[in-house]
Amino acid sequence: MITLEQCQARDRADELASLRQQFDLPDGTLYLDGNSLGAMPKDALARAQDIIRREWGVDLINSWNKNDWWTLPTRLGDLLAPVVGADEGEVVVTDTTSSNLFKVLASAVRIQQRRQPHKKVILAERDAFPTDLYVIQGLAGLLDQGYVLQLVDQPEDLAAAVTDQVAVVVLSHVNYRTGYLYDMRAVNELIHARGALAIWDLCHSIGAVPVDLKGAAADFAIGCTYKYLNGGPGSPAMLWVDPGLLAQAWQPLSGWWGHARPFDMSTEYTPDAGIRSFLCGTQPIVSLGLVACGLDIFRQTDMRHIRRKSLAMTDLFIELVEQECAGQDLDLVTPRDHAYRGSHVSFRHPEGYAIVQALIARGVIGDYREPEVMRFGITPLYLRFVDIWDAVQHLKAVLTRREWDQEKFQTRGLVT
Amino acid sequence: MITLEQCQARDRADELASLRQQFDLPDGTLYLDGNSLGAMPKDALARAQDIIRREWGVDLINSWNKNDWWTLPTRLGDLLAPVVGADEGEVVVTDTTSSNLFKVLASAVRIQQRRQPHKKVILAERDAFPTDLYVIQGLAGLLDQGYVLQLVDQPEDLAAAVTDQVAVVVLSHVNYRTGYLYDMRAVNELIHARGALAIWDLCHSIGAVPVDLKGAAADFAIGCTYKYLNGGPGSPAMLWVDPGLLAQAWQPLSGWWGHARPFDMSTEYTPDAGIRSFLCGTQPIVSLGLVACGLDIFRQTDMRHIRRKSLAMTDLFIELVEQECAGQDLDLVTPRDHAYRGSHVSFRHPEGYAIVQALIARGVIGDYREPEVMRFGITPLYLRFVDIWDAVQHLKAVLTRREWDQEKFQTRGLVT
Repeated sequence: MITLEQCQARDRADELASLRQQFDLPDGTLYLDGNSLGAMPKDALARAQDIIRREWGVDLINSWNKNDWWTLPTRLGDLLAPVVGADEGEVVVTDTTSSNLFKVLASAVRIQQRRQPHKKVILAERDAFPTDLYVIQGLAGLLDQGYVLQLVDQPEDLAAAVTDQVAVVVLSHVNYRTGYLYDMRAVNELIHARGALAIWDLCHSIGAVPVDLKGAAADFAIGCTYKYLNGGPGSPAMLWVDPGLLAQAWQPLSGWWGHARPFDMSTEYTPDAGIRSFLCGTQPIVSLGLVACGLDIFRQTDMRHIRRKSLAMTDLFIELVEQECAGQDLDLVTPRDHAYRGSHVSFRHPEGYAIVQALIARGVIGDYREPEVMRFGITPLYLRFVDIWDAVQHLKAVLTRREWDQEKFQTRGLVT
Repeated sequence: MITLEQCQARDRADELASLRQQFDLPDGTLYLDGNSLGAMPKDALARAQDIIRREWGVDLINSWNKNDWWTLPTRLGDLLAPVVGADEGEVVVTDTTSSNLFKVLASAVRIQQRRQPHKKVILAERDAFPTDLYVIQGLAGLLDQGYVLQLVDQPEDLAAAVTDQVAVVVLSHVNYRTGYLYDMRAVNELIHARGALAIWDLCHSIGAVPVDLKGAAADFAIGCTYKYLNGGPGSPAMLWVDPGLLAQAWQPLSGWWGHARPFDMSTEYTPDAGIRSFLCGTQPIVSLGLVACGLDIFRQTDMRHIRRKSLAMTDLFIELVEQECAGQDLDLVTPRDHAYRGSHVSFRHPEGYAIVQALIARGVIGDYREPEVMRFGITPLYLRFVDIWDAVQHLKAVLTRREWDQEKFQTRGLVT
């Protein structure tokens, strides 16, 4: 039997415990949705005030030089690089994950058009976060050159699906619903052995699990900064390209920020020689600047420590649910094997939607994803082991008292 | 002779004078660069605090529903619509001008591929803000279907350039360097008579001159919110599509925000039936939310009043420069004819770069654009007639004392 006292003891021994103090967390809330929107670093408000009052309000247009707005996407990229196993000068923070996928996918397709033009399949997972599939459909539809999206039903089917017709594979490093974590290095080997290129969506892994893009020989990566990185709502996304591909990596969203010499006002687009060629238009400086607040906290630890606590907490969550909520029709969706587990835990339940609403009413914030999946994000930077204990006690109460069986919890809202 | 006293008298009679109080302007600065980055509405700081501390920090993920983050692009679009002669439900505020141009251009090209597939020319101006040309090059390069960018050298050449080979015309309503203002209605008539579609870049006209997209029968429009609209540095851009074209207006940056039912998590992209189909990925909520601060000020007046003051001020600026700086080698680039003048005034001078630097050292913030062009943005919401007087006195001093002829003013920085 796991006890509350054991959880308290683990908190006392937690080497990351002090980082929680750097976040502003609302009273009475157990926030298990940091995989969807990260909590607010305490520093964010002061940072925003400085950007707005001083940089915008006082320095005005001069901020492009004086406050280095122009280099913010690469400066943040440099801060972020160690979190994903990249080097300085290789990452930009810019635009959205969706538009960044469009850029790297167009780039990968272009490379394959030259290398192996017969390959016309773009492979992705049926269970990908849908925007990835939509963007693939968008590019394929625009090109009108016979590119087709093929879907893999589950990770075990991937190897067979990467045929010699596959040009590009788009995969979520951690699945947004199940929490399944790919072995990036092994999958890249497989993909490359078949002559395809690998694009990794890091939305649910960046800041949650160790990512080693270079060590794993990835080709392209994109991902959110507003989830585990705590960059703020909708904060601009990251983008990385293997430096070995950069010279061939032409991308079509060729706005002036990607130009080699943007202030020459030339009529000809000449891409920057580096990762700035994946920039497009003028960036939302306030939201972009706040990304630094989250990244600054990551600099005080490393992904090895975060991973250790994450696995301890997801283990605890699974074990406690099995201990406290046995016989309650909960079906664990997330892999038990550490090697294949991200940092959120999902359970299926026929009343998953209503259960999540009932938990929210109790101040336990998880979320729901079709079909029937309840997600609980485990964020080691600001969660305590006792929070896991408390969350499971609330879940137990909701289930055993059938609190979910009320009309107010059954009614579906637009966003869950 | 125009006198300082006359300028003071005009300020006393100015019906927009009180709006200046709603902006935070740094002491000792004459800000004539609101055409590049608008000044800070006083309300911005409190708004940002509320978004960060309450919406992000407290309401967290629930803000997507509770604080309507999901509908922010269309709510802001509705606020913005009257400024551009559009109706509710027709405008979104999202992404960047560059990526929005990519979307509407791809959409326009797609329409023409079906209507008149032989048309392969995309026409734009040599003097367009370069990002427009770069994005056209990016899309044409991606499509690889023989689309070519053709450049018009000056507005007078436009009529002859719109041949029957032209599929789409991309024009700046107000030219970013010269301040030249197109007669949008007449140009649309010309473009439509030749079977082409018109995309208007409103970056330097939105909030600066009256824009009547529907009255002028435009097809597509995109533009910045961070210039005359005072939305904050790099705030997301606007996008409008003629409702009559919307049903055919497929766009390829098909991220999940553009889906008809995004939370169904369907694997198939089904675009929203309305203008939301031009959304792509998750938006930077803090920067996006601040756009409302600028738009709220526009709701206290209208573009007719703003235009009247703008023309009075640009007239004054031109007349005062001619009166005070005669014989100083200044060449007016901006049209004298009100019908063709936007809301900034540009002069050419061989030492334009250094003169602008010397003015900045005096607290007069204008900017410089290659080649040799000094730009002075006239923003009726927060400039006074005496500011124009003072700015010209500084210009006179810089020129007559040859203050520009110092090494510190001659040395070029990255961003001007």
